[in-house]
Amino acid sequence: MKTVAIFSGGLDSTVLAHELLAAGDEVLLLSIDYGQRHRKELVFAENFAKKQGLVWKLADLKSIAGLLGGNSQTSSAVAVPHGHYAEENMKLTVVPNRNMIMLAVAGGWAVSEKADRLAYGAHAGDHTIYPDCRPEFVRAMAAALELCDWHKLAMFTPFVSRSKADIVRRGAELGVDFAATWSCYEGGEIHCGQCGTCYERREAFERAGVADPTHYAVRAKYAEPPNFS
Amino acid sequence: MKTVAIFSGGLDSTVLAHELLAAGDEVLLLSIDYGQRHRKELVFAENFAKKQGLVWKLADLKSIAGLLGGNSQTSSAVAVPHGHYAEENMKLTVVPNRNMIMLAVAGGWAVSEKADRLAYGAHAGDHTIYPDCRPEFVRAMAAALELCDWHKLAMFTPFVSRSKADIVRRGAELGVDFAATWSCYEGGEIHCGQCGTCYERREAFERAGVADPTHYAVRAKYAEPPNFS
Repeated sequence: MKTVAIFSGGLDSTVLAHELLAAGDEVLLLSIDYGQRHRKELVFAENFAKKQGLVWKLADLKSIAGLLGGNSQTSSAVAVPHGHYAEENMKLTVVPNRNMIMLAVAGGWAVSEKADRLAYGAHAGDHTIYPDCRPEFVRAMAAALELCDWHKLAMFTPFVSRSKADIVRRGAELGVDFAATWSCYEGGEIHCGQCGTCYERREAFERAGVADPTHYAVRAKYAEPPNFS
Repeated sequence: MKTVAIFSGGLDSTVLAHELLAAGDEVLLLSIDYGQRHRKELVFAENFAKKQGLVWKLADLKSIAGLLGGNSQTSSAVAVPHGHYAEENMKLTVVPNRNMIMLAVAGGWAVSEKADRLAYGAHAGDHTIYPDCRPEFVRAMAAALELCDWHKLAMFTPFVSRSKADIVRRGAELGVDFAATWSCYEGGEIHCGQCGTCYERREAFERAGVADPTHYAVRAKYAEPPNFS
């Protein structure tokens, strides 16, 4: 099976890549530069691909960041909000229609490579904040991707109903080197420990009962009891 | 109603823009540079927007052309096929997943502008060749676009079950200046008259019974009797 995977260099998509390799797939990795502040993740992505000897491409979409308005991920004028993912201010981190754009571009590459499937690591925790991680959005995109070429392209989203803790557990089973993955939205020297995705990463390891190898600048107390597992 | 329209500067999307203006919409136009050989259409797009005093943006996606393989639209190594749209060799003109990519990027802008709808001029004649113009593809994308943000974004595709001749008839009613639209895939000084989209354009005017103001370099005989209306 030939699979194109959307691959950020983060925890979820790295576990996804291992999942595909464990299944014996021919894996092609696509990272997307959409002007994200935490472009450091792209270095982690490239390093992973090199280490695994996989085809890796970077789609440069920086030129459209200006269309996507003021959000903390693509605009230096908007600060990355600190706190728990479930909090209202995390909506500042939403990049309009980001996932459809990534799926569309990856789908174009998959069609041109005559790949059998397109893999994407959205998980259940994402859709507290991100409308384009909802299972119904993913289903609609899967239907569109099946029809976008005469050759049928399937979508593979094994984590869409799983928690990030489940992904950590699965990653541990697969022997993933978690220290070689990047999550933090700040994109600094080490993980900040205070942005939504740092909170979520820490929580996931705690809930999974897996040792967290991440160096966090601050191990902030959770502002509220974590309310998703 | 605030509407973002995908606007190539071609005949279909120009009639679409007039349709929206006639409905009293606030219209924002988006053109996409995907490295197409007939980038001349983008000049026609910009001229139209200036003349109408509309907001017009150009999304620069040239950087991803390399992901989309060898097709006659984005690769100078592949010649534009001549002949009727319905012929097998026209498949060379398919840009993998082009329409999903355009809809996704335009959807991102529409979300960021809190637009009510996204308009797109696919028509029934397109899907002889292009899988991503099929009504079932358009329906799946409409479902995904409705879900891509918490604010509902509707898709507006008034021509999806109409022929190009119907579009020409509608354009004539709306007073469209057809001479100010560009179709030809060759992107030369004037319309070549021999590529699939020139054939289709000529046919549409003939079938609509509307005078065709286009200067064609060659008025080639149709290779076969036109078989769609």
